[in-house]
Amino acid sequence: MDFKISSISTALDHKLWNKINSKTKPIGSLGILEKIAFQIGKIQENLTPEIKNPNVIVFAGDHGIADDGVSFYPKSVSYEMLYNYMQGGAAINVFSRQHGVNFKVVDAGIDHDFDPSLNIINKKIAYGTKNYRLGPAMTKEQCLQGFKSGAEVIETIQKEGCNFLAFGEKGIGNTSSAALILSLLADINLEECVGRGTGLNNDGVKSKFDLLNEALHKYNGGKDPIEVLTQFGGFEIVMISGAMLKAAELKMTMLIDGFIITSALLAASKINPKVLEYCLFAHKSNEQAHIKMLNYLNATPILDIGMRLGEGTGAMVCYPIIKSAIQFINEMASFQEAGVSESEEIETIR
Amino acid sequence: MDFKISSISTALDHKLWNKINSKTKPIGSLGILEKIAFQIGKIQENLTPEIKNPNVIVFAGDHGIADDGVSFYPKSVSYEMLYNYMQGGAAINVFSRQHGVNFKVVDAGIDHDFDPSLNIINKKIAYGTKNYRLGPAMTKEQCLQGFKSGAEVIETIQKEGCNFLAFGEKGIGNTSSAALILSLLADINLEECVGRGTGLNNDGVKSKFDLLNEALHKYNGGKDPIEVLTQFGGFEIVMISGAMLKAAELKMTMLIDGFIITSALLAASKINPKVLEYCLFAHKSNEQAHIKMLNYLNATPILDIGMRLGEGTGAMVCYPIIKSAIQFINEMASFQEAGVSESEEIETIR
Repeated sequence: MDFKISSISTALDHKLWNKINSKTKPIGSLGILEKIAFQIGKIQENLTPEIKNPNVIVFAGDHGIADDGVSFYPKSVSYEMLYNYMQGGAAINVFSRQHGVNFKVVDAGIDHDFDPSLNIINKKIAYGTKNYRLGPAMTKEQCLQGFKSGAEVIETIQKEGCNFLAFGEKGIGNTSSAALILSLLADINLEECVGRGTGLNNDGVKSKFDLLNEALHKYNGGKDPIEVLTQFGGFEIVMISGAMLKAAELKMTMLIDGFIITSALLAASKINPKVLEYCLFAHKSNEQAHIKMLNYLNATPILDIGMRLGEGTGAMVCYPIIKSAIQFINEMASFQEAGVSESEEIETIR
Repeated sequence: MDFKISSISTALDHKLWNKINSKTKPIGSLGILEKIAFQIGKIQENLTPEIKNPNVIVFAGDHGIADDGVSFYPKSVSYEMLYNYMQGGAAINVFSRQHGVNFKVVDAGIDHDFDPSLNIINKKIAYGTKNYRLGPAMTKEQCLQGFKSGAEVIETIQKEGCNFLAFGEKGIGNTSSAALILSLLADINLEECVGRGTGLNNDGVKSKFDLLNEALHKYNGGKDPIEVLTQFGGFEIVMISGAMLKAAELKMTMLIDGFIITSALLAASKINPKVLEYCLFAHKSNEQAHIKMLNYLNATPILDIGMRLGEGTGAMVCYPIIKSAIQFINEMASFQEAGVSESEEIETIR
């Protein structure tokens, strides 16, 4: 786990705020957009930050626990949705296309053989994880391989000139993994971590909780993130954690999606908390425990629009707001450039 | 005030929800996007709604009360910002350009003569309103002329093939008008309606309140919206009210911005409440009383990102989310089209 992540620099802080405050608008009036522009400026160490060749990468993996019926949908939906992605018919296709963001799919461990001619990045660790109610979801070697594969995906994309990433996921049953990761790594009662996923009713949530509670009680391990991911991870979650750590090492900006993606970040942050400095938080998912996860990470989500679809769709719907932040800092005129009068009081404030 | 607004049809309600629920995603998982798609489908009476030739129109007017110092900025900023718009340097230029939305500026009553060669739509009623602390801001004739001019602007734009509008405003001092309109038309204590505007500190808010309170106490009129607008309106606010009523008559969808724009809608809704059925609410402004206005109109804002810039910027930053709603309902594959398994329980739900 050799990720060398630097803290983002504070060298430009003053100049960035000066630039933001010189724009023809009341001080602070662009709200969160100003904070986004500031953070990306810091990450890129640049007063004119840019989003270059942005990508949304969906990591997909199957979950042994899905056989126990923790989801509203059958397990086959995982691989069927990958065919849907290839045909451009899923929500993430629609939104990434809308915003001109490159869309990539990684098979981290789907229980299906895809034709190699399909445009799927093959990093398959196995045909799905084992059922963690009966033992560890994967071996430690598989977990470490996942981190390595995730990092490799990012290295390749960064060489293509990308400096901005969003992550998505597909894996029937993966809100169960995320709930267990949250419970163990953030020390929150499992009951508070389990939610409706793709649409369980109250009885469904109860039986999901009972299953996960059984699995949690059988687990004798500690709270080391690698140990927790080995026991309860999905291959896609592990790979995303590795991808995030590598992206932070390469000073890329990450736009964090919902419950599953944030669980991968939670695990990554336990390996190196500096990863969080490279992250923007797209939305508060309707999966009830997501806000607890965000609070634990001290993260403020940009959107709260009742989404809970997964695939990175929350990040993609938020993406144009990030872009607006970049565009205002680069394109808006200053008071001086536009010849607009400033308040005398503002001059005093500076 | 002859606006013939129809209630939006319920004829397609069932078919629209069926279409939304057939898409390859858990039921309800696109949250607010689903409601937006549904509403625009209803407005357009179409299962494949479209945004055609969208426009954001900034109406600008000066306010006599600005001479009393209710704003953080000098009055001249109103016309200076119109030059900034013409040069493409303001926030609204940046965001409308980002999203390919046509940007138009209407001089409703700025205290400045613009060169006719500039691309400003001239509907000037007068060189700013009178100071309503001393008497009515405008005559009743001017108010009615404002409604008429606003409606004319919309008729022209609709003939150009536009079916989607956002409104913006410019007018130093106009949060004062909006506060008085809110207080009178929604029966809320003036103190709760007055806020920081472009950035007043506590003392500034106090003296703004004192001035407006004096003006309110001198007013002997009733709560008829035309009477209220005649007394306290800005020309831009009156014109936007007229524009909104005409847009609803023409079954155009409106994306409502912040405090000032919502005050124009509040007045319009007192003339014909059906205008509200054609509106989406872009954001909750950081101007503190905006949420009270939204609550009064029973409106749920899409964004809450701390913006308070005006110009229609809240609407423009929200715009791609509306577009995402339109694109998912038109472009996403259904379970059947994509060959993805559905939950048996879902079939039961239908």
